[in-house]
Amino acid sequence: MDYNKLSLELHAQNQGKIEIVSKIKVENREDLSTAYTPGVAEPCRKIAENKEEAYTYTSKSNLVAVVTDGTAVLGLGDIGPEAAMPVMEGKAILFKEFADVNAFPICLDTKDTEEIIKAVKYIAPTFGGINLEDISAPRCFEIERRLKEELDIPVFHDDQHGTAIAVSAGLINALKLVGKKFEEANVVINGAGSAGISICKLLMMQGIGNVVLVDRNGALAKGEEWMNDAQKEMAEVTNKKNERGLLTEIIKGKDVFIGVSAPNVVTAEMISSMAKDSIVFAMANPTPEIMPEEAIKGGARVVATGRSDYPNQINNVLVFPGIFRGALDVGATDITEEMKIAAARAIASIVKEEELKEDYVIPGAFNHEVAKVVAEEVGRVARELGITRVDN
Amino acid sequence: MDYNKLSLELHAQNQGKIEIVSKIKVENREDLSTAYTPGVAEPCRKIAENKEEAYTYTSKSNLVAVVTDGTAVLGLGDIGPEAAMPVMEGKAILFKEFADVNAFPICLDTKDTEEIIKAVKYIAPTFGGINLEDISAPRCFEIERRLKEELDIPVFHDDQHGTAIAVSAGLINALKLVGKKFEEANVVINGAGSAGISICKLLMMQGIGNVVLVDRNGALAKGEEWMNDAQKEMAEVTNKKNERGLLTEIIKGKDVFIGVSAPNVVTAEMISSMAKDSIVFAMANPTPEIMPEEAIKGGARVVATGRSDYPNQINNVLVFPGIFRGALDVGATDITEEMKIAAARAIASIVKEEELKEDYVIPGAFNHEVAKVVAEEVGRVARELGITRVDN
Repeated sequence: MDYNKLSLELHAQNQGKIEIVSKIKVENREDLSTAYTPGVAEPCRKIAENKEEAYTYTSKSNLVAVVTDGTAVLGLGDIGPEAAMPVMEGKAILFKEFADVNAFPICLDTKDTEEIIKAVKYIAPTFGGINLEDISAPRCFEIERRLKEELDIPVFHDDQHGTAIAVSAGLINALKLVGKKFEEANVVINGAGSAGISICKLLMMQGIGNVVLVDRNGALAKGEEWMNDAQKEMAEVTNKKNERGLLTEIIKGKDVFIGVSAPNVVTAEMISSMAKDSIVFAMANPTPEIMPEEAIKGGARVVATGRSDYPNQINNVLVFPGIFRGALDVGATDITEEMKIAAARAIASIVKEEELKEDYVIPGAFNHEVAKVVAEEVGRVARELGITRVDN
Repeated sequence: MDYNKLSLELHAQNQGKIEIVSKIKVENREDLSTAYTPGVAEPCRKIAENKEEAYTYTSKSNLVAVVTDGTAVLGLGDIGPEAAMPVMEGKAILFKEFADVNAFPICLDTKDTEEIIKAVKYIAPTFGGINLEDISAPRCFEIERRLKEELDIPVFHDDQHGTAIAVSAGLINALKLVGKKFEEANVVINGAGSAGISICKLLMMQGIGNVVLVDRNGALAKGEEWMNDAQKEMAEVTNKKNERGLLTEIIKGKDVFIGVSAPNVVTAEMISSMAKDSIVFAMANPTPEIMPEEAIKGGARVVATGRSDYPNQINNVLVFPGIFRGALDVGATDITEEMKIAAARAIASIVKEEELKEDYVIPGAFNHEVAKVVAEEVGRVARELGITRVDN
């Protein structure tokens, strides 16, 4: 199907995808006096006395801003805030569809780190959470770090953590299927940008055996001069055997290949150099690092991609709706590593042990059970951590 | 009825008043591929090529931000951005109810003029218009002026212009009813803040006979030392006869009293000192400058207030939905004085000459005809002025 053409028509016919509607009727003077003046002064007064009451009397408790500066949109790169809007609106409707979260797109007319931080802080009183989206590295790291520090509502950069959580979920199940231990798995991640680094960190938090991050220039290893700051930091804690060289070398003998890089950079031959029962997550979009047929030809036992037309789709939609639903439901003030791991395990748990097979290691994007289970687990962990607002 | 109690219940039960919903279904892979990836890349590309296409493919064309800093909310004053949210949500649902405009509350965590201007400019790419709300004077003047200059979408401070337009509409009809000419009417406006000044300016643009603005300290007149900058400016162009003194003096012999000041500052005796067939718009809320019964006792022929429980309610809801509907429909890049005057005349025109009487000089708040007629007239004038985007 020509989704480009269909999508263009759909967007033009509807003039966008979101609509802001009233939850209540305003049809006569009584309605107006209750929803608006003079009655509305009373909830205003209550909140003025105690800001916390905003969660009771306004939409804040279930309202997330989907914030972008339009610098890293899909595979299109820096296309600007106006052009990013269709993606942000898409995100907003998925939030609603999968977890009944009200989400609103905020496309910012600045690319400056400090200005983006300020802009989000200015508008924060309206929202109960901030989903950062399609902001290019390395600015996205600092922006997320600072906003997490300076705001008392959950902040989550989906491009980093959504992908990391979905990959973790799939990998937990794939390793279980092939009978390898998570703590002993040897992993190569190709692509050492925000997604690759975030995947690496989350796998390490869960005790993965060994990871080598690889970039165009080769493996991240101590002392390599081409690395940026974020990569240098990763080189200190990854690559236990100090492997050096390009992907063709590093991939040899690995149990797991995770690609967040570019189309067609892996061959069947390279896959055949991996360990037995290898696991290949090739997530470049829309064309993966290696097509599933080729990977299997090379000997891969489990293959996952970002595509909906192959089995095992690694899709962020499994993650962000449930994560925010859970955080909002318990009034969490942050989304922590523990909550992310809980989300990964929750997603993995949807595929029962007896259902687990090569072409089913992760639930389908339209499995509505996922967001529910993720929300419950994320909320439970937030409560255990004691990072919820006063009375939750 | 205890609207305070009802309102509190309504807001708590619904956790606010707005909801963000999808205009389209996302129920299967085809839907997802069209509304989101990979198809969504195509509208993104179109907009990246030409920003103007954002009006075709996104919600921007029908999306207004209701922006406040929470400094002048209802009669409550500076209650902060969180506490302002119920009013902004109320405004948003009225936009939808009366003119099918999608409006979204943005409550800003800053009171600094420059920072407010920046914040609105940062978020502007998402929106097709900006409705400023409940920002205290004199900052509201500079904020509106600068945003009108620096943005290419319509900007409108409702507290100033919405009230001015509704008052103009009522006054056009009231003067017609009592058989006095607009160009000869002698007007006193009590209250020389943002609303009073805005009303004064709009009446003058329409050629009103003579206006004297009065503040607590007395009539605005050249050389008075207590005036602020905005008031000094007004003193230069109003008060043709250089009248000086307090309201009790200035009101004598006037055809029209307009109050945007404080409860109970006018007596029946003061009204009886006005010219024959006097017109009294007493709009302090919820208690007017003089109650309608008292004003009539003092000899007023037409009385209007801001209240829904008396005839002739001067309500901004007659104005802002239609103004933005009209501006958005034709892709106007500004809301000009001419468009405001067109809106006032359109509202006045709803009351047919044969229907006009003392207790019916302005249409009721729930007359849905109003927004339609206002939108048509505002759009028509914008087109005439040539201030619409390219192809409208």
